[in-house]
Amino acid sequence: MEKNRLEAFSDGVLAIIITIMVLELKAPHATELADLKPLLPVFLSYVLSFLYVGIYWNNHHHMFHSTRHVTGGILWANLHLLFWLSLFPVTTGWMGENHLAPMPTAVYGFVLLMAAIAYYVLQRTIIAQQGRDSLLAAAIGNDWKGKLSPVLYLAAIPLAFVSPWISSGLYVFVALLWLVPDRRIERVLVKRPGN
Amino acid sequence: MEKNRLEAFSDGVLAIIITIMVLELKAPHATELADLKPLLPVFLSYVLSFLYVGIYWNNHHHMFHSTRHVTGGILWANLHLLFWLSLFPVTTGWMGENHLAPMPTAVYGFVLLMAAIAYYVLQRTIIAQQGRDSLLAAAIGNDWKGKLSPVLYLAAIPLAFVSPWISSGLYVFVALLWLVPDRRIERVLVKRPGN
Amino acid sequence: MEKNRLEAFSDGVLAIIITIMVLELKAPHATELADLKPLLPVFLSYVLSFLYVGIYWNNHHHMFHSTRHVTGGILWANLHLLFWLSLFPVTTGWMGENHLAPMPTAVYGFVLLMAAIAYYVLQRTIIAQQGRDSLLAAAIGNDWKGKLSPVLYLAAIPLAFVSPWISSGLYVFVALLWLVPDRRIERVLVKRPGN
Amino acid sequence: MEKNRLEAFSDGVLAIIITIMVLELKAPHATELADLKPLLPVFLSYVLSFLYVGIYWNNHHHMFHSTRHVTGGILWANLHLLFWLSLFPVTTGWMGENHLAPMPTAVYGFVLLMAAIAYYVLQRTIIAQQGRDSLLAAAIGNDWKGKLSPVLYLAAIPLAFVSPWISSGLYVFVALLWLVPDRRIERVLVKRPGN
Repeated sequence: MEKNRLEAFSDGVLAIIITIMVLELKAPHATELADLKPLLPVFLSYVLSFLYVGIYWNNHHHMFHSTRHVTGGILWANLHLLFWLSLFPVTTGWMGENHLAPMPTAVYGFVLLMAAIAYYVLQRTIIAQQGRDSLLAAAIGNDWKGKLSPVLYLAAIPLAFVSPWISSGLYVFVALLWLVPDRRIERVLVKRPGN
Repeated sequence: MEKNRLEAFSDGVLAIIITIMVLELKAPHATELADLKPLLPVFLSYVLSFLYVGIYWNNHHHMFHSTRHVTGGILWANLHLLFWLSLFPVTTGWMGENHLAPMPTAVYGFVLLMAAIAYYVLQRTIIAQQGRDSLLAAAIGNDWKGKLSPVLYLAAIPLAFVSPWISSGLYVFVALLWLVPDRRIERVLVKRPGN
Repeated sequence: MEKNRLEAFSDGVLAIIITIMVLELKAPHATELADLKPLLPVFLSYVLSFLYVGIYWNNHHHMFHSTRHVTGGILWANLHLLFWLSLFPVTTGWMGENHLAPMPTAVYGFVLLMAAIAYYVLQRTIIAQQGRDSLLAAAIGNDWKGKLSPVLYLAAIPLAFVSPWISSGLYVFVALLWLVPDRRIERVLVKRPGN
Repeated sequence: MEKNRLEAFSDGVLAIIITIMVLELKAPHATELADLKPLLPVFLSYVLSFLYVGIYWNNHHHMFHSTRHVTGGILWANLHLLFWLSLFPVTTGWMGENHLAPMPTAVYGFVLLMAAIAYYVLQRTIIAQQGRDSLLAAAIGNDWKGKLSPVLYLAAIPLAFVSPWISSGLYVFVALLWLVPDRRIERVLVKRPGN
């Protein structure tokens, strides 16, 4: 029962984050198609952040599906994750409005990095409470995606000052990593030598 | 159980979309009845979009009522639908503020079209997972409304440049199609030759 | 189960309405206590509308507690109620910012009236579906509050042009009618002759 | 069942409060790191308020976990708590934007105080309904945190005019009191003589 309420609260926060992000897309006062053009980077940033929140919701969903008890530590590790996710709308808006200027693109990556770390901490907290041979520990396996993502974000932050396109390319790449169903991609990238 | 959380998340997003749309209705600074007049198209656009979100919520509700398992594909097809619905507030505001200018009216129709397609894809994904003789496949029947709606939106988009009134008339007509209880209207429009 | 989702969706919409209303309370740029003074009517309007949404949530809660099945008619009667309630933030803001000017005060009353009518229609729809000797029909009794409230709102609308203070006094009075526990007030106002 | 809906509504309101607070963090129009500097007090105020809402959600969660029946009095005591919590975004924004000026810092403390009182009233209402030997009465024990917090807020309000840093230090201290797990801190501060 406790778990249900934590899930419901997290769902509420994620639903609001995903929806208020769209408030950064301000309808232009003019009415031509060309007037939508400056909105394009804002729109694409919104699409990317929507995907990220969707991925977090999806993974959060699976993580708690294989969780029994909720402790105080898990509650706060979850709130810590929600904190960093709550910064997505403002960093998305900053990056989009400034057409991927270096600093906003780096800050966007920093918030992605902190959210990934918070997710990792939450996962560790649950596994520590449930034991190494728990359902969750088995479900995440070697967790190569969870380990690769923060490394790529970390690389993307300084690269934003070389070219924001490389950084945003990395953000899109990580999102796709999580979107494509696991088995197929794992076969290609990880389990090369046989099954 | 998984299904419950998908429903709860979708309900949250739809509840927020339907409520933040009203933020486009900005209270005028003046205090006469005449000062409300320029708000009228914004208000009517809000009413129309409120109806649409209500219809989507209603149908979503029925669709998942006859769904058992939720797969990864269904999760993402659902998020795809929510993405297009999340654009309703901004396109509603743009159309309303510009008193149904051609381009905003066409863009409004485009988002309606994409939402309709996303709904169709979600429905197909569920039926593909459940089998052709599933409860859902039986419930939607020949789905003439689901097939007619996108055609009408598609017609409304270019017609907005002839007269936005035709387009918005079509949007209202489609909304009414879904509002009026099925049996009565089906009898009139589809099942003309006998029962 | 269907009922649960209607309740959850309504709770979501009411929770968002009650919370976005507070966005009308904009923090002043200055930092003296005197700078809060012009916010006072906005604050009091917020308190009043918060009470009203609380009352609606409370009553909605009880109404559906004694409801079994949810039909298409009930779904739409419920959305109709949520529509009028969704206009509370904008009319509250308009009335508050203009320090209870006549027209905004009348429009506020008009939205209260429409919400009361929508609530009445929803109640009738549920009773029609459940039968006159249903739990709900018994629970609401003679429903004198539900009948008196719209009459008082109707009186308050023209009275706003005489004095907005009378109208807002009536709005406060109706809110208090619903807040004070039923039995005590009923004894005083209705059941005077014995019992 | 009634309890579930009160919890769901409260979760919804708390989820929205925690998320709209972030709307006060407006992305700057410039794109240098230095442009984020004026945002720092707004950001830190957001972090503090996020912690407070998290603590309230956490405690609310535990309080209702040991509650059976929900009465009209409990419903309204709960709405009264939500009312004061709903003022967090505006007072957080006012304090942050004005870089901890005395008056906004005092008003922030006043809202914290009122929320603490409302929480206490809600707790008393539940215990009054459940009896002194209820689960909740046992769970809260001597409730030294619940009694100390309002005293510290009360001290912080006038102290804001001496130095807002003392007040905000007190706000942070109270938040940490609640964050640190009970047993450890209780051992140090309360149960000094043995156990």
